[in-house]
Amino acid sequence: MTMNTTNSTKLFLRRQFLASLGMTLGWSVISTRTRALPQIPLDGNQRPTVQQVIDLILAEIPGAPFKQTVDTIKIGSGQQPVTGIVTTMFATVDVIRQTAAAGANFIIAHEPTFYNHLDETAWLESDAIYNAKKDLLNKHRIAVWRFHDYWHTHRPDGVLMGVLTKLGWQKYYNADNPRIIKLPSAMTLNDIVDHSKKSMGIRQVRIVGNPDQRCLRIGLSPGAAGGRSQIQLLQQEKPDLLIVGEVNEWETAEYVRDANATGNNLSLIVLGHSESEEPGMEWLAPWLQPKVSVSVTHIPSHNPFMEA
Amino acid sequence: MTMNTTNSTKLFLRRQFLASLGMTLGWSVISTRTRALPQIPLDGNQRPTVQQVIDLILAEIPGAPFKQTVDTIKIGSGQQPVTGIVTTMFATVDVIRQTAAAGANFIIAHEPTFYNHLDETAWLESDAIYNAKKDLLNKHRIAVWRFHDYWHTHRPDGVLMGVLTKLGWQKYYNADNPRIIKLPSAMTLNDIVDHSKKSMGIRQVRIVGNPDQRCLRIGLSPGAAGGRSQIQLLQQEKPDLLIVGEVNEWETAEYVRDANATGNNLSLIVLGHSESEEPGMEWLAPWLQPKVSVSVTHIPSHNPFMEA
Repeated sequence: MTMNTTNSTKLFLRRQFLASLGMTLGWSVISTRTRALPQIPLDGNQRPTVQQVIDLILAEIPGAPFKQTVDTIKIGSGQQPVTGIVTTMFATVDVIRQTAAAGANFIIAHEPTFYNHLDETAWLESDAIYNAKKDLLNKHRIAVWRFHDYWHTHRPDGVLMGVLTKLGWQKYYNADNPRIIKLPSAMTLNDIVDHSKKSMGIRQVRIVGNPDQRCLRIGLSPGAAGGRSQIQLLQQEKPDLLIVGEVNEWETAEYVRDANATGNNLSLIVLGHSESEEPGMEWLAPWLQPKVSVSVTHIPSHNPFMEA
Repeated sequence: MTMNTTNSTKLFLRRQFLASLGMTLGWSVISTRTRALPQIPLDGNQRPTVQQVIDLILAEIPGAPFKQTVDTIKIGSGQQPVTGIVTTMFATVDVIRQTAAAGANFIIAHEPTFYNHLDETAWLESDAIYNAKKDLLNKHRIAVWRFHDYWHTHRPDGVLMGVLTKLGWQKYYNADNPRIIKLPSAMTLNDIVDHSKKSMGIRQVRIVGNPDQRCLRIGLSPGAAGGRSQIQLLQQEKPDLLIVGEVNEWETAEYVRDANATGNNLSLIVLGHSESEEPGMEWLAPWLQPKVSVSVTHIPSHNPFMEA
């Protein structure tokens, strides 16, 4: 699943151009739940089906289609003509309602729809909340496809590139070692926290480490890759700082705590899962828009938590 | 693994008495890392071995020993005479140092020592932080045993009872349905957050739901039981509020968010994993102390995170 560097760089530059274009033209980013979406204009003659949109995306993914993947249609038909596409992290009930209000009927979500990684639903058959969500999707004839494994396999990783773009760090992307960002000059953990919160629109993060630690090399792993994967990144790359979306608290957090207690300078920022990857689904909209004849809109699903 | 109610109640009352005694006599609870521990007095003639202490504990656990359990000796010898026992959530480097300074050589920890649930170490063989921790434990000849599955199997669940005691809710414990606490009168989510933080010594929690929701029936699941287990508790018991230690953010948090969005009153408090179960390891000290001839001291490992 690696590509040669030249192709990867070309692809990256093209993506960057499209992304910049997207930003300039102002692809809709809804920043509050209350703001109404504009109606997405329909184009009756050129409506692709759900499956056609998926196939068009997979044509850009090295090694696709995969034999095993969680990236399946979770509800709805692949044959349904698409009136509009919404990209998001989670197809929450709020996102579904906004999608319907916008006249769109295809949600591309990075994460599960039904509260477990494989979107298994047998155990939810008589669950009132599952059924309310399913009924809402069926009522509005909205299809949901998960775009997780494939988007991370794209080169550059679509989620990573979205996050780097938000952080203004896309120029530090290294196709030969995408997991590590080397800053031009060291920043303190505290300054990186402030910068991350401001540029990514995050109220609060959780950290382990010394806020005054100076960080030059940063391991960047949005989402929840799991403790072993996160710790192996630390072992192999020895960054000053690891930025992740989510940890199992008994794994990476304790490793970094012990690292500091044994005299190693190592910091951890936990951004929150949803907010750590949302920029990747925002970056998807301008990437996908030129390829399809219907509107592509990003609707952020936001952090489910409030601090209290 | 169920007990009849009468026995369970008797056991519960006896535990409660010991716990109250423990609180009254002030079994050491170190609330800051800087406070020095008193030297644990040695009793040369009556030192039990590590394995004898374990066996003595297992004699109180229904169905023990288990064929499969993570509750194994993680480092050190079962034959080693014990000079003092420390109970904690995580055998962090700080906790190890405090244990050594106190002259104790046996740590009973609820959670893994080496950053993964099974405490597998092959992947850590050349890891500097793992080796520094292992060397520190060996230098001080400290044995570590995990007491997780067995403590949860004890009736009452030792962790649950520790948490209920901290919250002042032990009187609401129902041996027939330990997962649900019914308050004598409803409290708002906000008031329960304040009460939990104050009584458990937690700086901040994360919530999903309406802070003004009135809650009477509370599902209590300290630690990280996993999304399916947490959601099944919600399905089966239909509490107003679920209090947990940790969630996978794509599971329980999203379920509760969708519940609220579809008109269901359901709240979630995420306490933090370590702090949600620490009271159970604190409760262990006065439970274990009358059974052994060496001192048993609780040293909290505290929350690894800072909010930033």
